[in-house]
Amino acid sequence: KELQAAVSPGPGISRDAFRQAVVNTLERKLFYIPSFKIYGGVAGLYDYGPPGCAVKSNVLAFWRQHFVLEENMLEVDCPCVTPEVVLKASGHVDKFTDLMVKDEKTGTCYRADHLLKDFCKDKLEKDLTLAPEKVAELKHILAVMDDLSAEELGSKIKEYGIVAPDTKNPLSDPYPFNLMFQTSIGPSGLSPGYMRPETAQGIFVNFKDLYYYNGNKLPFGAAQIGQAFRNEISPRQGLLRVREFTLAEIEHFVDPDDKSHPKFKQVANLEFFMFPRDDQVSGKAAKKMNIGEAVSQGIVNNETLGYFIGRVYLFLTSLGIDKERLRFRQHLANEMAHYACDCWDAEIECSYGWIECVGIADRSAYDLRAHTEKSGVDLVAHEKFAEPKEVEKLVIAPVKKELGLAFKGSQKNVVEALEAMKETEALEMKANLETKGEVEFYVCTLGKNVTVKKNMVTISKQKKKEHQRVFTPSVIEPSFGIGRIIYCLFEHSFYMRPSKAGDEQFNVFRFPPVVAPIKCTVFPLVQNQQFEEVARGIHKKLTAAGISCKIDTTGTSIGKRYARTDELGVPLAITVDKTDTVTIRERDSKAQIRVDVDEVASVVKEVTDGQSTWADVQWRYPTHHSTTAEE
Amino acid sequence: KELQAAVSPGPGISRDAFRQAVVNTLERKLFYIPSFKIYGGVAGLYDYGPPGCAVKSNVLAFWRQHFVLEENMLEVDCPCVTPEVVLKASGHVDKFTDLMVKDEKTGTCYRADHLLKDFCKDKLEKDLTLAPEKVAELKHILAVMDDLSAEELGSKIKEYGIVAPDTKNPLSDPYPFNLMFQTSIGPSGLSPGYMRPETAQGIFVNFKDLYYYNGNKLPFGAAQIGQAFRNEISPRQGLLRVREFTLAEIEHFVDPDDKSHPKFKQVANLEFFMFPRDDQVSGKAAKKMNIGEAVSQGIVNNETLGYFIGRVYLFLTSLGIDKERLRFRQHLANEMAHYACDCWDAEIECSYGWIECVGIADRSAYDLRAHTEKSGVDLVAHEKFAEPKEVEKLVIAPVKKELGLAFKGSQKNVVEALEAMKETEALEMKANLETKGEVEFYVCTLGKNVTVKKNMVTISKQKKKEHQRVFTPSVIEPSFGIGRIIYCLFEHSFYMRPSKAGDEQFNVFRFPPVVAPIKCTVFPLVQNQQFEEVARGIHKKLTAAGISCKIDTTGTSIGKRYARTDELGVPLAITVDKTDTVTIRERDSKAQIRVDVDEVASVVKEVTDGQSTWADVQWRYPTHHSTTAEE
Repeated sequence: KELQAAVSPGPGISRDAFRQAVVNTLERKLFYIPSFKIYGGVAGLYDYGPPGCAVKSNVLAFWRQHFVLEENMLEVDCPCVTPEVVLKASGHVDKFTDLMVKDEKTGTCYRADHLLKDFCKDKLEKDLTLAPEKVAELKHILAVMDDLSAEELGSKIKEYGIVAPDTKNPLSDPYPFNLMFQTSIGPSGLSPGYMRPETAQGIFVNFKDLYYYNGNKLPFGAAQIGQAFRNEISPRQGLLRVREFTLAEIEHFVDPDDKSHPKFKQVANLEFFMFPRDDQVSGKAAKKMNIGEAVSQGIVNNETLGYFIGRVYLFLTSLGIDKERLRFRQHLANEMAHYACDCWDAEIECSYGWIECVGIADRSAYDLRAHTEKSGVDLVAHEKFAEPKEVEKLVIAPVKKELGLAFKGSQKNVVEALEAMKETEALEMKANLETKGEVEFYVCTLGKNVTVKKNMVTISKQKKKEHQRVFTPSVIEPSFGIGRIIYCLFEHSFYMRPSKAGDEQFNVFRFPPVVAPIKCTVFPLVQNQQFEEVARGIHKKLTAAGISCKIDTTGTSIGKRYARTDELGVPLAITVDKTDTVTIRERDSKAQIRVDVDEVASVVKEVTDGQSTWADVQWRYPTHHSTTAEE
Repeated sequence: KELQAAVSPGPGISRDAFRQAVVNTLERKLFYIPSFKIYGGVAGLYDYGPPGCAVKSNVLAFWRQHFVLEENMLEVDCPCVTPEVVLKASGHVDKFTDLMVKDEKTGTCYRADHLLKDFCKDKLEKDLTLAPEKVAELKHILAVMDDLSAEELGSKIKEYGIVAPDTKNPLSDPYPFNLMFQTSIGPSGLSPGYMRPETAQGIFVNFKDLYYYNGNKLPFGAAQIGQAFRNEISPRQGLLRVREFTLAEIEHFVDPDDKSHPKFKQVANLEFFMFPRDDQVSGKAAKKMNIGEAVSQGIVNNETLGYFIGRVYLFLTSLGIDKERLRFRQHLANEMAHYACDCWDAEIECSYGWIECVGIADRSAYDLRAHTEKSGVDLVAHEKFAEPKEVEKLVIAPVKKELGLAFKGSQKNVVEALEAMKETEALEMKANLETKGEVEFYVCTLGKNVTVKKNMVTISKQKKKEHQRVFTPSVIEPSFGIGRIIYCLFEHSFYMRPSKAGDEQFNVFRFPPVVAPIKCTVFPLVQNQQFEEVARGIHKKLTAAGISCKIDTTGTSIGKRYARTDELGVPLAITVDKTDTVTIRERDSKAQIRVDVDEVASVVKEVTDGQSTWADVQWRYPTHHSTTAEE
């Protein structure tokens, strides 16, 4: 109960008030700073100040240990500046856009969906005279907002008479604005380039080399940590929607015919909140599920996807994300890219609602195929046969003209689904087409059945001698928004507790040692040369051992100094009150133990490295009962 | 002698051949990859592949330990996208340029100085009929190349009839090209921005907050690691001149009246190659000097600058940079920015010659003053007096009009030098001006004396009551080009040794454990399930301990597998040839010891963490004499 009160805003405090308390502390202690503040700042750009920067590098170091090292991934480091051809192939030049409207007089830009959303919400909240059918209409618009086309958005804006919020001027029709920062490479002005919107493309274009480096074997994972850039039209939501951010991405390449994972059983028994597509559609809530069962029941498409979902769960909870406010939500059919097989977002609940922090997608062969096509370099894998095989090969030849006439815009989805059919499925279709002339065919990327007629596809078998199988690997991509994870971590770690006298509220971040920006503070109880020397000696030893620590020799009361370290989330505080032994105090319990000066550095190292818990060392050393009135 | 042969190309091998051997190995083992290779690449952009990426993150982790942690620096992390106003204040928008010429027909761009340099070098090398005075002229041009104005460069290009190298077309006059990648922030197109050309500005604009965070105390260091961007006109020299690179920068803020450093004595006895300004001018060679003496003799301007020179020396040599091919070269007066007091570059010799890898500059108060002026926010420090002081304040008032008439373009230098005079100096000048009417005055940023007359400056003393001293701190800036350091490290670490049979040359990188991309490989001597299980167990233990290791269970001969790990610079290789004990082999000596399976992980951890040396553990465990013919 008490824990619950600490981990969530609770009944006594609103989400907004809670967020304000966290953000005030974060800004005051320089966890982050609005960038270029002395010049008035730039929307959507933030600096990490000293403690924030340390948290970030701790999170990234743990990510490297948890994913790159533990999974033997191939980490690469590619530039942010990217030539146009790469992002043309990936689709970003044409499709990485948001819809924008302009104030027709001042030229000020707005995101079209933001204006419509604000209008609907405002109306629903404030206009009590709304007819029930109007209420239903506005609610419906809010629900389908992300699916509206430019035309639909524009006509709604016109219909509701929405004008520019600041000037009340009329607005332009919505039109797409590309979110990439554009630049020019070299002095000629003739080579357009962009700041990458994601790190993934740098991995895809290197597939051939990385596959070779891995001994021409699948599966393998490649990883990259780096900056990505999105020139948001009007950034909102503080640290959650920014114009420059750190991504950590994994591209795990697998044989599309075998997406099993050798280490799946290591995560198969984990249980956590999952929110499958069907439950979302039927209005149910997220529920605790066993990931092993979710895979075996086919709710999660394959073992490798399931394995990464499990590993992401372990990663986030190890950082200190509250498992009660973490869920894995499956994308609805209309949310997924047309090429994706399945996609799950790790969503974390914070004062802004449920926030997508990690996306885990099976992107099939889309990216490697796109770059193969554009570059002319085959990004494929080979499986050599011990002996050449006489194979009867299934040939599926969609008749594009007929399919185009029948399915128009969806033609591509149908073609890809036909080509992706397994042999049994294709042969069944062949038989049915011959007997009935047409069949119902489920296209997963459309989420529905279509009618395929005999003239739309020819299916046949041909004999061939093959020495190897050549195929485009599938890609499973877990992609981590590091800044979002860190912001949610700040909220989940923050709590307030009253001072002993009850007249003040102290702020605390309950960071686990792996995340804490400073692992330990050292201070002499009183200003006194002997104590200071001991403190400096301990500080030096800890630093040499690579433990981030801070010495505080100010004459401030010990209680105030503890409060300062709590506010930075420092797990341990050493107080020098004698020259032979000192006390160590743990942040959340405020419990203290007494330890020899010579041992104190190694005890702190044990606990902050994770070799021992606080409970372990507490059991080993005598408890110290504070005699000062200050705590 | 043998060592010498290994550490340098040596007499038998040319610089170019040596470089080719290193670069071939680096590319083949994916230490780096030309970016976007499948699309033909982009000049000046490179990826780090898996081992290169690991080396880079090891170098950065060690940098954090050696500087940020050991010196209690405040690390920040600011965006790359930077609004124009910031880079206008810093001078980059106006001055961060190179001179460019264009092929008048095709529009192809060239760096003007490159073309002139190539012409002079080519002429000197190939034209044996050159008159001695012509030789002297061309050599002089090469020496003063960096000082030539656009007009001077242009007239030389005309005089020598230099044309576009590819087409032989005539060239335009040289004109400045700004090296920053330009972009636009937000959708309006009205907020120009640039990709930062250095990380330093992000620190300067945060000075006020950081000073507060440090308890309003000086000195303190702030640090930042991040990407920087320079849109080079025509990148050459492979990894040394690139368009995007990682910088690690320190801005150490000090009281301009007290640049002593409390830890200076810890480095004062270090000795290394230094190349002071005077020795360069008089044609002497760099010489080994004691840094303590260099500071006390005034060769290095102050203790803080000297302290950082010493720390940089320790940093680079700990990474494996050869101390015989490392020197600290002082900037000549004409190389330094006009505001700089003193500047030393850590230069590393590689196959391209002496390369600037770290710049260590005393930038005085320039940057903070520039941002104070532009932003209107005072970036200053305060020294509060215990009691208000009645002070007689020296007022130096340069008469700008007279100075302008007398010194024209150098006026600013003279004004700043006058204002920077210490009290005794100013009073002496006052006395001299009153008696003689004029004095000779040394302006360090011009490198010469000027004549100051009585009407050019008034010097007086005024009485005031002061409660505090308000001043702009000086900045000492050590700035590290991480990519350049890593490339030089690759060259200094590379050597070749013959196979036992003498018929093959094997490549080795002698990375110290702190740098090595993989710390240890594990392989079963023969393919056998028992050995493989033992190997997997060891691999798992090492991974859990955070040690980057690789398992190799291929059936390749043990000698070949050793050669593969040597080529990646892996310091230790564990071979499983029994189920209870295994051997550990050290890369450079090829010596082997035999260790219990249960102990092997902790022995490897000891050596790779730097707690023990190979010699320590070699002494503790029995030597193993290889019986296989393969090594």
